[in-house]
Amino acid sequence: MEIINRLESEVRGYVRSFPKVFTHAKANWMTAEDGTKYLDFFGGAGALNYGHNDDVMKKALLEYIESDGVTHGMDMATDAKIQFLKTFEDVIMKPRSMEYKIQFTGPTGTNAVEAALKVARKVKGRDRVLFFTNGYHGMTLGALAVTGNAAKRAGAGVCLCHSTPMPFSGYFGKDRDTAEDLDMMLSNSSSGIEKPAAVILETVQGEGGINVAEIEWLQKIEKLCRKHDMLLIVDDIQAGVGRTGPFFSFEPAGISPDIITLSKSLSGYGTPLAITMIKPEYDIWEPGEHNGTFRGFNHAFVTAIAALEHYWKDDKLEKSVLRMSDRIKERVNGILAANPAFKAEVRGRGFFLGIDCEQAELADEIAAECFENHLICETAGPNDNVIKMMPPLISPDADIEHGLDILEKAIHTILDKHGLLNNAA
Amino acid sequence: MEIINRLESEVRGYVRSFPKVFTHAKANWMTAEDGTKYLDFFGGAGALNYGHNDDVMKKALLEYIESDGVTHGMDMATDAKIQFLKTFEDVIMKPRSMEYKIQFTGPTGTNAVEAALKVARKVKGRDRVLFFTNGYHGMTLGALAVTGNAAKRAGAGVCLCHSTPMPFSGYFGKDRDTAEDLDMMLSNSSSGIEKPAAVILETVQGEGGINVAEIEWLQKIEKLCRKHDMLLIVDDIQAGVGRTGPFFSFEPAGISPDIITLSKSLSGYGTPLAITMIKPEYDIWEPGEHNGTFRGFNHAFVTAIAALEHYWKDDKLEKSVLRMSDRIKERVNGILAANPAFKAEVRGRGFFLGIDCEQAELADEIAAECFENHLICETAGPNDNVIKMMPPLISPDADIEHGLDILEKAIHTILDKHGLLNNAA
Amino acid sequence: MEIINRLESEVRGYVRSFPKVFTHAKANWMTAEDGTKYLDFFGGAGALNYGHNDDVMKKALLEYIESDGVTHGMDMATDAKIQFLKTFEDVIMKPRSMEYKIQFTGPTGTNAVEAALKVARKVKGRDRVLFFTNGYHGMTLGALAVTGNAAKRAGAGVCLCHSTPMPFSGYFGKDRDTAEDLDMMLSNSSSGIEKPAAVILETVQGEGGINVAEIEWLQKIEKLCRKHDMLLIVDDIQAGVGRTGPFFSFEPAGISPDIITLSKSLSGYGTPLAITMIKPEYDIWEPGEHNGTFRGFNHAFVTAIAALEHYWKDDKLEKSVLRMSDRIKERVNGILAANPAFKAEVRGRGFFLGIDCEQAELADEIAAECFENHLICETAGPNDNVIKMMPPLISPDADIEHGLDILEKAIHTILDKHGLLNNAA
Amino acid sequence: MEIINRLESEVRGYVRSFPKVFTHAKANWMTAEDGTKYLDFFGGAGALNYGHNDDVMKKALLEYIESDGVTHGMDMATDAKIQFLKTFEDVIMKPRSMEYKIQFTGPTGTNAVEAALKVARKVKGRDRVLFFTNGYHGMTLGALAVTGNAAKRAGAGVCLCHSTPMPFSGYFGKDRDTAEDLDMMLSNSSSGIEKPAAVILETVQGEGGINVAEIEWLQKIEKLCRKHDMLLIVDDIQAGVGRTGPFFSFEPAGISPDIITLSKSLSGYGTPLAITMIKPEYDIWEPGEHNGTFRGFNHAFVTAIAALEHYWKDDKLEKSVLRMSDRIKERVNGILAANPAFKAEVRGRGFFLGIDCEQAELADEIAAECFENHLICETAGPNDNVIKMMPPLISPDADIEHGLDILEKAIHTILDKHGLLNNAA
Repeated sequence: MEIINRLESEVRGYVRSFPKVFTHAKANWMTAEDGTKYLDFFGGAGALNYGHNDDVMKKALLEYIESDGVTHGMDMATDAKIQFLKTFEDVIMKPRSMEYKIQFTGPTGTNAVEAALKVARKVKGRDRVLFFTNGYHGMTLGALAVTGNAAKRAGAGVCLCHSTPMPFSGYFGKDRDTAEDLDMMLSNSSSGIEKPAAVILETVQGEGGINVAEIEWLQKIEKLCRKHDMLLIVDDIQAGVGRTGPFFSFEPAGISPDIITLSKSLSGYGTPLAITMIKPEYDIWEPGEHNGTFRGFNHAFVTAIAALEHYWKDDKLEKSVLRMSDRIKERVNGILAANPAFKAEVRGRGFFLGIDCEQAELADEIAAECFENHLICETAGPNDNVIKMMPPLISPDADIEHGLDILEKAIHTILDKHGLLNNAA
Repeated sequence: MEIINRLESEVRGYVRSFPKVFTHAKANWMTAEDGTKYLDFFGGAGALNYGHNDDVMKKALLEYIESDGVTHGMDMATDAKIQFLKTFEDVIMKPRSMEYKIQFTGPTGTNAVEAALKVARKVKGRDRVLFFTNGYHGMTLGALAVTGNAAKRAGAGVCLCHSTPMPFSGYFGKDRDTAEDLDMMLSNSSSGIEKPAAVILETVQGEGGINVAEIEWLQKIEKLCRKHDMLLIVDDIQAGVGRTGPFFSFEPAGISPDIITLSKSLSGYGTPLAITMIKPEYDIWEPGEHNGTFRGFNHAFVTAIAALEHYWKDDKLEKSVLRMSDRIKERVNGILAANPAFKAEVRGRGFFLGIDCEQAELADEIAAECFENHLICETAGPNDNVIKMMPPLISPDADIEHGLDILEKAIHTILDKHGLLNNAA
Repeated sequence: MEIINRLESEVRGYVRSFPKVFTHAKANWMTAEDGTKYLDFFGGAGALNYGHNDDVMKKALLEYIESDGVTHGMDMATDAKIQFLKTFEDVIMKPRSMEYKIQFTGPTGTNAVEAALKVARKVKGRDRVLFFTNGYHGMTLGALAVTGNAAKRAGAGVCLCHSTPMPFSGYFGKDRDTAEDLDMMLSNSSSGIEKPAAVILETVQGEGGINVAEIEWLQKIEKLCRKHDMLLIVDDIQAGVGRTGPFFSFEPAGISPDIITLSKSLSGYGTPLAITMIKPEYDIWEPGEHNGTFRGFNHAFVTAIAALEHYWKDDKLEKSVLRMSDRIKERVNGILAANPAFKAEVRGRGFFLGIDCEQAELADEIAAECFENHLICETAGPNDNVIKMMPPLISPDADIEHGLDILEKAIHTILDKHGLLNNAA
Repeated sequence: MEIINRLESEVRGYVRSFPKVFTHAKANWMTAEDGTKYLDFFGGAGALNYGHNDDVMKKALLEYIESDGVTHGMDMATDAKIQFLKTFEDVIMKPRSMEYKIQFTGPTGTNAVEAALKVARKVKGRDRVLFFTNGYHGMTLGALAVTGNAAKRAGAGVCLCHSTPMPFSGYFGKDRDTAEDLDMMLSNSSSGIEKPAAVILETVQGEGGINVAEIEWLQKIEKLCRKHDMLLIVDDIQAGVGRTGPFFSFEPAGISPDIITLSKSLSGYGTPLAITMIKPEYDIWEPGEHNGTFRGFNHAFVTAIAALEHYWKDDKLEKSVLRMSDRIKERVNGILAANPAFKAEVRGRGFFLGIDCEQAELADEIAAECFENHLICETAGPNDNVIKMMPPLISPDADIEHGLDILEKAIHTILDKHGLLNNAA
């Protein structure tokens, strides 16, 4: 660890929360240098929905490498890429009657978002994009401009323009319809908001603190996009690929985004991959107008093919996630109900869950206590006030229960420390 | 190929120049579906300096995957990452007496550039960055703002601010010292250029058309940075990792950049990786101020370790590149001398070479003719007027000569077609 | 008029609404070339609160010119300027216990606003400024960036950054407290709004359609400015100098703006003058940091001195305005009550009044009909949906009643034309 | 003066250089409170080309005010405005075969520049504008973005975008053709400069230090504008209205700017006025797209009519200025030749002259010494290194000689103080 402290930039983050050297990982468990096994409620920040080193994908990847398949192909055609496109079309798009062109961007979420914003602005010939309070879309300047976090925005070192934040679903409480407010602002030609090219949103805000957009609100936003001639961009990088249950997080709303970004768990194995899905009528790119070196990392295509084939040809995974999600909420609600002084709330969809702590500092203490007890989970939200629960989707029920045991104990320990534990419970 | 044309975005590029489906690749050769073998003078756009699927790295990678080493680790500590840091320190930094902190950014060059620009602006508390005509640094908005290409800039869809282009080394011809001009502009408090935080440059501009900065010019720019209190950022993403001979392209100038970006061939195998090297005194990041999901793709660490160990512990590779570079220039100069009507010029350093064609359209025709004859090379420059020659550094001499044979024949064919061939030669 | 149509730019506006050549003007009357007299409910768009060519000011101005007093003094000291400062201090600031430094900017409102924004940003070292829906602050790029009107913003031809629009008092109806919403957005570190340097507002929005901020809302905004460390800028260019009754429009709210802009009627005679009032602790300008040629137009000082001396040493003018304002509202409310199909509403403070027409096109037709009958009044609001009533403050009661007679008749004529007149009334 | 120090903002400037209270002024003389008369080599910073309180204009103005002519008319038609348009057409445009539409902007130079930039951007549909090193165009954000001075730019408090500085005529010395460099940058699609909408320039840079563009350079820039489809904006606010001899400063170059801005001396009397002249084919404004309160200050039309009628119906004034300009240069060159240690240079055109001092601090000391001896002149240039000589154009020869006597003595005094005086001379 010494060399990390000495040589790695101060910008490093998770290694501070999880100060262990990890060497091996399998499914929903990680193993440290000293042999200790950690239960994973973190899921690689959403990139490991199928857990670590899934055997199906691993086998496919080993075979591909062994055979000297093309590793790095830029955006030249390779059989792996063609197979990925076929599988994505057959397994994901066709059953959902979706028609989209696929853009392979540099293999990071932020790059997929930059491409989405560029093409939306090109389509509409306008520069303004609306985003939402507590939204998070990436760290490069285009994506950062539609991200809410003030500290991260300040890191830009330049002004972030051409974007306007609007209150997210439920931002001012359940009684206020922020979609209606937005409609009023957009309908008024003197509101100070230039006509936007697009709206970008997450259906469940991850970094923003597991804020769940209401289904009706999503539907209203889609209607607003049609009414005010704006493209609807759904950033499904963290919420997509089954994290909330269905492959796309917006499926329950029945909406049809004009542009969709995917990354993180798309490749399934932690192999970097990102795509921007664009409705055919909006795919007005010139060749090479947005490019990048690692757009054609074929290892990621290989693992993605295996993941799609294995997990998405039926609805078993989705159903299992939804079933166990209810169980988690139920248990956590029990813990919270027993400890009213905790003043916390559980929310989320699927395995994209959070416990919002009114006293923000408790969240970090509880997550740290969990790690002490070999459960990996992180915090999110504007003040790191939300304990994030994102187990791999394939976690066995028993492991989930085991994780919740650790979490419950950690909550008790920390509440006790602060004199907030309900001893009567 | 049908599915590519049908499903992949119009933005796709190389597949148009190289319209074949590739399935396998080894060293400096790629194999198409139909079994045809193509000689590689393209080098994965600089990401495959050691060729395709190098056996040393392949072995290390297979073993790592087989053993269920951590694949995706965000910026948690893993043994692979620690080993990478150790190797990079021992093999690269220590022998060159370099002291830098290493930031792992999202694994694309543009992300490393964004991080470099952010931290430079933070260090100096100013937003302006100088870049150079024909410079290329990436496609996300921060990096795009310091990229010269007008079509790519227009793709932003928003104004690109906080950056000012200045004439590169030799831009106005050999007699004009553009560094001196820059000094005069910066010394004048009414020049209209806000005091910059930093200067960003490539020592050899790749996408810009293989424009080579003079060594003295680089030294003058470094002095200007000291004089005017600006950070010097060298983007060595394409020119670094041996492409020009030495590991860093700026070594012959003896300069000491404040920030260095590396990506492309750093991992050696096409596995996505990017780092931003920052002098310790400028590593003023807050934890997590710039982050990203695939910062800790351990497969890339594993191949990078193998590459550094195998190729950079001695100067064999560098010497071989420099020796063969002279040979290529000699042969191409012979071809050009024999065909004065071609009006072309060869330039570059190491295996980072280009043939600048006064009649721009010839370049694309020659490159296409090469591909017809199973040699892969691309064009670059503001009007795609430069035939780029970037063979893997490990290409056997005989293959280089073979590639030059194909190139020579292609030049002859195209010149002949245009009535420009010197039949007397 | 031929030469106007032939030579004056297409940008000309009022000459289209009031297509007559005017030659003379006195008090609240203007005389056209053909001798026709027009009653003035327009007040020079707020610049003629004391009417045209007021005799007291006229005398002072003639004497000054006759004596060869300095006309153009840049920001050199002149006796006229010194006398203006003394009078402004004695008559306006001291009785109100106000302490401000006075900046003489270029003699246009937009210039005073630009100075206000610059110094606010300098004081706080931040670039963001909040403004409000339907706000209007000027046409130069700094002021335009805090102006709501979409067509005017589009005229910039560049993106307007560093400013964020927020809903004005009552924007979402009387039940919604937009000040509270703003507090929530500013208190959330992930709202996407960078911490602002300042808030700029009009207490009554003129161009935006005579929207009146509630007194409690103004007080809340002042508190928010203190809480969130922002400067409060009140743009009193149109609403100030008695237009709403008191000299400053914000006096009834008892707030203490950090910066105040004044222009239009400040000089009283239509002689160009603008000032930016800055609390002493925020007057951190460097000498000459914001300058301009006509900052020292002494004719304007001379008329301003006469106006302040004559009209503001007692409260007669204010009382008269408030009294007659009630009368106007009463009469207009009567007209509206008699014609429910008109669906219009009267609002405003003092002689800053408007009739908001649900059917926007009626407003322009009624104003045109008024002009036909020799009453000058204009329309405002996002869709030109508000008939603006801004008589000179010194208008005799009988003239006001006469103007209302013309207005009533015009309303009847237009309603009748549209089949909306209540014939029973 | 106490009240100025106490109440006027720290931004005040000239009152610091000329710390006297002035009460009266006539022609080329100003009179202070104590009766001292000062000779004027300052000319109201270019706004008093005909001197103070010219009797012809004064008479016309007094009559107009006496008769209750319309003072403030917004952009309604008045007989004074119509007469101004007629006179400007007859006296200025027709004899020069110029066809332009006239836009009346807010009566400050910066407002005329903002209008010019807006309409140019609208015409071309692009946001970038080129300006030149040491250029000065105004203090509002649009105009400031094309102004070179770093301190004034910093005053913006926001980034100034959409503008790119290029080296002015002679910036790198006489041997370098900066127009050719600019052509090369614009012809290169990877230069990093977005295709501009327009170029804005002064033919003689006033605030920038009396830098004179070569006639050939101006002609080349005009050709570049045609070649690269950019509008040519000449900002003739300070150099126009006879300051360099002819009415427009660009007449000797025979160029035809697409847009011209005029202000300062246009009204002749110090009465605020500004216009933007636009070639008819580019007058694509929408009504009211750029407006402002004091666009129709009729006093300024009245004095402008008198000035145009009196001074521009023949070429007497122009000839007299050119004749005496040579005389001034001759005398100053004599002084400089006699004192080689001074290392100064005289330059300029007409009565727009400057003495550039290699030791910048001498300029301010000499100007201060002049004021001590009752000669008013100011300094300019990036380091206030240029003594500006801008006498009213109507200054009698004897007064010019008297002013030069004072200047010569001041130079001797200051050189002596610094041990730089050539006692042999």
